[in-house]
Amino acid sequence: MSENKYKTVISIDCMGGDLGEQEVLKGIIKAYKENNSLFFIIHGAGKKLPQLLFKQKSLLNAYRYVEAGNIVSMNDKPSQALRNARNTTMWNALTSVSNGEAEVAISCGNTGALMAMSMIKLKKINGINRPAIAVLWPSTNIRGFNILLDAGADIKADAQDLCQYALMGVSYAKSGFNIKNPKVGILNIGTEEHKGSSELLKAADIINNLSSILGFKFIGYVEGDDIPSSKIDVIVTDGFTGNIALKTGEGTATLVRTLFKETFNKSLMAKIASLIAFKSLKNLRKRIDPRRVNGGVFLGLNGTIVKSHGGADAIGISAAITLASQLTKNNFQKNLESKVFQINNLKNF
Amino acid sequence: MSENKYKTVISIDCMGGDLGEQEVLKGIIKAYKENNSLFFIIHGAGKKLPQLLFKQKSLLNAYRYVEAGNIVSMNDKPSQALRNARNTTMWNALTSVSNGEAEVAISCGNTGALMAMSMIKLKKINGINRPAIAVLWPSTNIRGFNILLDAGADIKADAQDLCQYALMGVSYAKSGFNIKNPKVGILNIGTEEHKGSSELLKAADIINNLSSILGFKFIGYVEGDDIPSSKIDVIVTDGFTGNIALKTGEGTATLVRTLFKETFNKSLMAKIASLIAFKSLKNLRKRIDPRRVNGGVFLGLNGTIVKSHGGADAIGISAAITLASQLTKNNFQKNLESKVFQINNLKNF
Repeated sequence: MSENKYKTVISIDCMGGDLGEQEVLKGIIKAYKENNSLFFIIHGAGKKLPQLLFKQKSLLNAYRYVEAGNIVSMNDKPSQALRNARNTTMWNALTSVSNGEAEVAISCGNTGALMAMSMIKLKKINGINRPAIAVLWPSTNIRGFNILLDAGADIKADAQDLCQYALMGVSYAKSGFNIKNPKVGILNIGTEEHKGSSELLKAADIINNLSSILGFKFIGYVEGDDIPSSKIDVIVTDGFTGNIALKTGEGTATLVRTLFKETFNKSLMAKIASLIAFKSLKNLRKRIDPRRVNGGVFLGLNGTIVKSHGGADAIGISAAITLASQLTKNNFQKNLESKVFQINNLKNF
Repeated sequence: MSENKYKTVISIDCMGGDLGEQEVLKGIIKAYKENNSLFFIIHGAGKKLPQLLFKQKSLLNAYRYVEAGNIVSMNDKPSQALRNARNTTMWNALTSVSNGEAEVAISCGNTGALMAMSMIKLKKINGINRPAIAVLWPSTNIRGFNILLDAGADIKADAQDLCQYALMGVSYAKSGFNIKNPKVGILNIGTEEHKGSSELLKAADIINNLSSILGFKFIGYVEGDDIPSSKIDVIVTDGFTGNIALKTGEGTATLVRTLFKETFNKSLMAKIASLIAFKSLKNLRKRIDPRRVNGGVFLGLNGTIVKSHGGADAIGISAAITLASQLTKNNFQKNLESKVFQINNLKNF
């Protein structure tokens, strides 16, 4: 791939998103306008995308198009998707990573199918027991979000798994978002008696010991209401709890939005007020819309996968591409692998 | 207690709330105004409450005052509170239940201490492995809330515990809120592969079998974003997950409120709008304020304990009293005990 030697190569599955391949293409164009050192391996199926690309002069020499015979649908169960994986755009996007052409792949398709295919195609990093999904969570800090993992790649996690999540979360925070000395905490519940869950206690002990070696600040246990706070950057938890927390947060935000809408439709005065504050309210809506914080990331595989939200628009896609290019530029994957190697050779880990 | 023969007797610990005993008293007066068949065993410490009661003619013959030597502070750790439990208002309020004077006690004091004391003082219902805390969760249904349990009484729950939570949750929904045929679900995560956690699978199977015997509708697994929805009335989960979900929901609601305030302070137009919509916004704030949905309840002990929020105002206290009197009137405790007996004698439970 000599033509891409000086470029940041991104493999992108353009199919399976709610808004269609044309929206993904808009995201690619937007990202390329902001950063012309990007090169895209564009994975598509059908006639529409090649036609759109053909007309799109602004991307000239910035992509290679790879045609697939099939796509994974949003409704496919992971097992079903796996049986028909070959020659889908999703599979091909992962192939670009497994054969070394790209370090990061992006897809806004079916999460379960993407995780299942990624596990098979990329395999776990040597020394990692369980891969994790890291998500960005709206928060009150300047950056606007915190990192939580695992958000549901696996349902269980023992003490060592939680330590590996801490390691992966810290690497991700540093390479992806330039957070120099991330604050890391373990999700737990508050009551004194309960702080004793043996796996969490053990994990806290090891993570505390790792903090000086890996360069982060361990702040101990945090509770659910700390997740969106500025006292923390990386929240570590098992995938069952993380997924429940994520969905509960989304559900609560949706409830508040619903009630908010009801409120502003109830009285004439409120309707007038909402017209006056239209722009401010629109900005607020953007800020708390879970779709705007785009890019759940699969960590712990031989290659990084950015899972963009199924409903992501061009701005969301472009944000996911920017994240992927940042990770590539900072050699995230290689750094992570060498950290895993280093830590696994420590005594008492 | 012949004077209370025709009255609904409520034991109430007036100390330890953030707003002081005077606010609890206001709540008692409000509840009594709405329902003069109530009789209160009022537990206090210090001079203030007796003085206030002395001046309060509206409660004449509607209470008995019990003086304690000490109170449990909000900062006391459960173990610490237990060591000094005797002769506290909290302990005395539980005594009124254990000696049969009242069926339900209310406290807005320290949750951990209250749970620890309740376990010792009231002991578990014969056949119940783990007591649970049931909380009310703001939702989009007409009632305005759903019931979730366990919200953190214990950290673990096996299949049988989850079934007992379902049983207790159903009894509570029926006696406390007149929900005739409650919809019950188990909190789980969505991905196909993960639906297999063996304890959850087993629990789903047994709960499904119980539904016709106990008169409820089992709707299977639900996810975090279903908790505030109208598709469910009772959400069953272990105490670790339940507590994380609860705190995460509260944290998210707080985040949205914070951002909302910021939005309305940012521009002049938005400020004007917030003045115009002042009343509507105030109503909305009330609706999503977790303190307004008052009354976490300890279930599975020989006596029911309503844990009112520490920051509850008179309206909140009055809501907790109304809930307690509703449970007493409907013989909640006796019904629950006989259901536990009935179910435990079933084969395959």
